[in-house]
Amino acid sequence: MNKIKVAIVGYGNIGKYSLEAIEASSDMECVGVVRRNVEDKPAELSAYRVVGNIAELGEVDVAILATPTRKVEEYAKQCLALGINTVDSFDIHTKIVDLRRSLDAEAKKHGAVSIISAGWDPGSDSIVRTLMESLAPKGVSYTNFGPGRSMGHSVAVRAIEGVKDALSMTIPVGTGIHRRMVYVELEEGADFKTVEAAIKADPYFVNDETHVTQVDSVDSLNDVGHGVNLVRKGVSGKTHNQLFEFNMKINNPALTAQVLVNVARASMKQQPGAYTMIEIPVIDMLEGDREEIIRHLV
Amino acid sequence: MNKIKVAIVGYGNIGKYSLEAIEASSDMECVGVVRRNVEDKPAELSAYRVVGNIAELGEVDVAILATPTRKVEEYAKQCLALGINTVDSFDIHTKIVDLRRSLDAEAKKHGAVSIISAGWDPGSDSIVRTLMESLAPKGVSYTNFGPGRSMGHSVAVRAIEGVKDALSMTIPVGTGIHRRMVYVELEEGADFKTVEAAIKADPYFVNDETHVTQVDSVDSLNDVGHGVNLVRKGVSGKTHNQLFEFNMKINNPALTAQVLVNVARASMKQQPGAYTMIEIPVIDMLEGDREEIIRHLV
Repeated sequence: MNKIKVAIVGYGNIGKYSLEAIEASSDMECVGVVRRNVEDKPAELSAYRVVGNIAELGEVDVAILATPTRKVEEYAKQCLALGINTVDSFDIHTKIVDLRRSLDAEAKKHGAVSIISAGWDPGSDSIVRTLMESLAPKGVSYTNFGPGRSMGHSVAVRAIEGVKDALSMTIPVGTGIHRRMVYVELEEGADFKTVEAAIKADPYFVNDETHVTQVDSVDSLNDVGHGVNLVRKGVSGKTHNQLFEFNMKINNPALTAQVLVNVARASMKQQPGAYTMIEIPVIDMLEGDREEIIRHLV
Repeated sequence: MNKIKVAIVGYGNIGKYSLEAIEASSDMECVGVVRRNVEDKPAELSAYRVVGNIAELGEVDVAILATPTRKVEEYAKQCLALGINTVDSFDIHTKIVDLRRSLDAEAKKHGAVSIISAGWDPGSDSIVRTLMESLAPKGVSYTNFGPGRSMGHSVAVRAIEGVKDALSMTIPVGTGIHRRMVYVELEEGADFKTVEAAIKADPYFVNDETHVTQVDSVDSLNDVGHGVNLVRKGVSGKTHNQLFEFNMKINNPALTAQVLVNVARASMKQQPGAYTMIEIPVIDMLEGDREEIIRHLV
């Protein structure tokens, strides 16, 4: 069997866990890692090529973009122009449709596939939300996150001037309402009140109750566990009081990386274009024979 | 907008609820009901055509096969031969792959689409099981049903000689193990012990702990509420102890009918062939503009 040739672009937390998920899959192989500093090669990369540009890797089927969310579009276009499929976990919910349009055009131009916003939320949760809405088309849904660290929110805080390190904890307070508990370690000389105001004005935080606390060490608070509780109560046909619930308690980057690897596999089975996860048949995310999967899971 | 023209084949419990779900959808219309006795026309059908053969209905886009599960293949082939898409809730798990092969050939021959085993289990639960397996490819899943009546099991008991009416209740005892509580009303002169033995030997019951009780009136026990608890504990990449759970408490035929209507809609967007629900993008089951759905649910 020809294995799917996967490159990892960016080697932070998600990149590391993506490598583990590729190594745990028997139908794909990592053909290299793309990062800015090619000299930074930790032990687990010793058997892999580390390059500064994906074009140096030769044949690549699909690139996992494990970059900051705001860099996704730029890297995706570079890869798609080379005819390489891309997958990402772009997580700015309000800009997903724009990204899909932009990458759809680029992907079709080069006969490639891009699967966007593929993590657990947006991502696998989106599939559950869509399924629940189909099962009870009238009704109300709530997505309750946490308790757990939000990677997207933590990265947003770290980008603020004066912040040395940061951790944003999401606390569910029910019916889709969340409190943000933000822990910041400041750069020498930074003013806490200025940083606090900048965080509260950031698009990631402006709609939520946000508390900012200055700490000596963000690292000592670090735990990547997370969770979600999705609920829907609604009407199937004309029958009311249909109740649905999805819960998970997970290691956040490990699950995000597993989803990225799943959609990397699924990208090989789609027509050229850009897709969100709700546009992909769930069977395409699994390894193995199609009839065997149906026999086992339907 | 051209509405999707839907016919309902068979007008028992699922047929009635399917009509309600079609009436609650703005993008489809019921063009008629096919049943053996066309004179049997309850009040809610007064505005609809009731015919003995689907060919009498003129243009039909998709037929909802609300027939007993063992009649699905026969009716599906009749419809597909006329170029009409079909959807069904065929629920004999061990024969799904065979049905898919058989209807796939027939559907492709006539440029039509067939979506099979589309209820809640098999059906929407299959999507959740597949999604959970993708999120933690190594691990163990359990499907715990009930408490609630199983339509498939009740129909199977009713087909046994000497049974006037029957109800099979599914009781979850954890880790995917179920007890079957079967309540039977006998025909005059039928022997209870013979009926009990026939039930316990039926493929629907042979693998489960089954208790059969004779009652005076099955109707007085009737409640169509049901539920499920799907759980998976497994490994994402190389990270263990990832925990997933899906729960629902629902009116069983109302949900089955809603799913049938959803896949009737989805059938209009697939290439010719036969599909199970895990092979269909979940977005195709919803009414409305694609980008609006993505904006709202991803």
